[in-house]
Amino acid sequence: MTLPMTLNDLQTPCLVLDRPTLQRNIDAMAAIAARLGVALRPHMKTAKSIDVARIALAAGARGITVSTLAEAEYFAPLVTQAGLADILYAVGITPQKLNRVAALNQHGANVIVIADDPEAARAIAAHGIPALVEVDCGEHRGGMDANDARLLAVAAALGPCLRGVLTHAGHSYAGRTPAEMTALAEAERTAITTAATRLRTAGHTIDIVSMGSSPTLRHAAHLDGVTEVRAGVYMFGDLFQAAIHTHALHDIAMTVLASVIGLRPAEHRILVDAGGIALSKDRSTQAPGLMLDYGFGLLLDIHGAPTHGHATVVHAYQEHGVVALDPTHPFPNLAIGDLVRIAPNHTCMTAAAHDRYHVVEGTQQITATWPRRNGW
Amino acid sequence: MTLPMTLNDLQTPCLVLDRPTLQRNIDAMAAIAARLGVALRPHMKTAKSIDVARIALAAGARGITVSTLAEAEYFAPLVTQAGLADILYAVGITPQKLNRVAALNQHGANVIVIADDPEAARAIAAHGIPALVEVDCGEHRGGMDANDARLLAVAAALGPCLRGVLTHAGHSYAGRTPAEMTALAEAERTAITTAATRLRTAGHTIDIVSMGSSPTLRHAAHLDGVTEVRAGVYMFGDLFQAAIHTHALHDIAMTVLASVIGLRPAEHRILVDAGGIALSKDRSTQAPGLMLDYGFGLLLDIHGAPTHGHATVVHAYQEHGVVALDPTHPFPNLAIGDLVRIAPNHTCMTAAAHDRYHVVEGTQQITATWPRRNGW
Repeated sequence: MTLPMTLNDLQTPCLVLDRPTLQRNIDAMAAIAARLGVALRPHMKTAKSIDVARIALAAGARGITVSTLAEAEYFAPLVTQAGLADILYAVGITPQKLNRVAALNQHGANVIVIADDPEAARAIAAHGIPALVEVDCGEHRGGMDANDARLLAVAAALGPCLRGVLTHAGHSYAGRTPAEMTALAEAERTAITTAATRLRTAGHTIDIVSMGSSPTLRHAAHLDGVTEVRAGVYMFGDLFQAAIHTHALHDIAMTVLASVIGLRPAEHRILVDAGGIALSKDRSTQAPGLMLDYGFGLLLDIHGAPTHGHATVVHAYQEHGVVALDPTHPFPNLAIGDLVRIAPNHTCMTAAAHDRYHVVEGTQQITATWPRRNGW
Repeated sequence: MTLPMTLNDLQTPCLVLDRPTLQRNIDAMAAIAARLGVALRPHMKTAKSIDVARIALAAGARGITVSTLAEAEYFAPLVTQAGLADILYAVGITPQKLNRVAALNQHGANVIVIADDPEAARAIAAHGIPALVEVDCGEHRGGMDANDARLLAVAAALGPCLRGVLTHAGHSYAGRTPAEMTALAEAERTAITTAATRLRTAGHTIDIVSMGSSPTLRHAAHLDGVTEVRAGVYMFGDLFQAAIHTHALHDIAMTVLASVIGLRPAEHRILVDAGGIALSKDRSTQAPGLMLDYGFGLLLDIHGAPTHGHATVVHAYQEHGVVALDPTHPFPNLAIGDLVRIAPNHTCMTAAAHDRYHVVEGTQQITATWPRRNGW
């Protein structure tokens, strides 16, 4: 099959990625990191695409972050062949998975892992895998408090494999104002630099002091003592990022292309062939304190513009999306088979159901197809 | 790589499917359909597995239902080579997708589509594809009311392609008591038999009178006038089905195998490597009127037993699941790397992120690996 030429040649539902918007988002975050004087280590868990990673590399990224070992394996050739420095697997690892990392590193992939448990750290050290100590800056997911006695125990267990410290202010997504985000960024910075100082005082060499989330990076006042920041969703943006004002609605680079499969004018609704699998069941924009609830996604026109007003997917069945149209707009001039686009609530989750991006550059013409590496 | 021998040889997260439980569920629903005197047309949108479809065929299914054209293509060999009668694509189709169906049918796949719009019906008829008229029995998703004037217009537009009528009481999932479910089943039956009678009175031949959902099928008092029922999730079950009492907790056939990646005894929590992608963000059991909210899934032990009490995944990050342990149970004797299993809220959504099932038969030994056909 030859490459489809326009959006009309695609089988819906599928992902559309606008390359100029992606480039603008990548450049903007690179500029923020440069202004703050830190390296940017993009988190590839959102894009899962080597083509996107190459753009981030060209914009100055030295290392990347991944969320699965499948991603680490997929991106490894960028280290061995394309000048990427290293790959940080930023999810706690189990002893059973260490052989897979060790095999990658024997081929020069420079995979770094994280640890917050002395026993797990000993297993990592036994495999000779470089690692960061995971610090909890308030999210209470992984990691230890910077002042926890076990911080030194984990570092000691890592021994010569210790490279640095890492934290993630995932709770920054509960921030609602720029001032709150700035305070969360400072708390994240304080936690990780405190941990770095404690370990250095204990005689350890700490080269990497890593923090980050898209919101805290955008709102940090300064990042003194931090060497690198991690963020991923900024590349694509989504409705949740727009709702918390860390990303503009018109800077959402990835949308779901869908077809109209039903018209219900009496109820001012339409059906589309993008349901819970194509959009995900993520309901981030339902979170407390947000101005707008976008349901399971916002209806856009085929050009990706919000010309339908606040028309949102209110029910996401497995393959059916029910769009409640904006009551202030007339019933749209749409027929069964017409194409629309849906902006996602949470890009990382929406993208996960799809195996490729159809790349456009501001028009309906498809200029490339980029694969994604899903799974584990 | 040779086939992994036990659960301990698998990379987590991944799906585990207990074959005896699957067989029991399939046999139980086949018995219900037989008692009601209707054919059972299993919906393969849950399993998306040819191996599961073969078990359903052996239990007496003549046709199947699918939710994507990718599934239709994947299951087509069962029609052309294994005696399956036909494949019903039970999502409204767009004109652009008809060539794909026509190509399948030219090779003998016997794909049947549905229509609720005269213009779409004309396009279907122009391609010579057999079709059912979609009737709305109260869910207000696809279809027309059985008494809608357009019912006859759609049937007329289908002409010789008309095979019958179809409805789906998706709103049965809002039922909370057996009596409510029985009433919903009767409303579903009344709607579809009314539509069949209207079309027959107008001179049409109606061979297929199709309804169904797992709950209404289990609770129907009788199905007079109905020729077939469709259901899918009954094969695997899930926590939502258990919460609405259409499936027993111990009859959930599919679980997510996960590894412990963090221990937080001070908070009575653990972290597992099954997050929002591996479990889905489905929150069905949050629905009003249910007795138990299972978060994003229920923690089971490696044997699939609920020995941890009401321990549920309360946060589902992309790759991290945070399990809040049961306050009435002591902190479990688990170490990083230990295996657990998670029962899913909504099997169809959870399975969608995974490309295969690891099949067990009541023990930890893997007896088969069955692929899934995801995507569109």
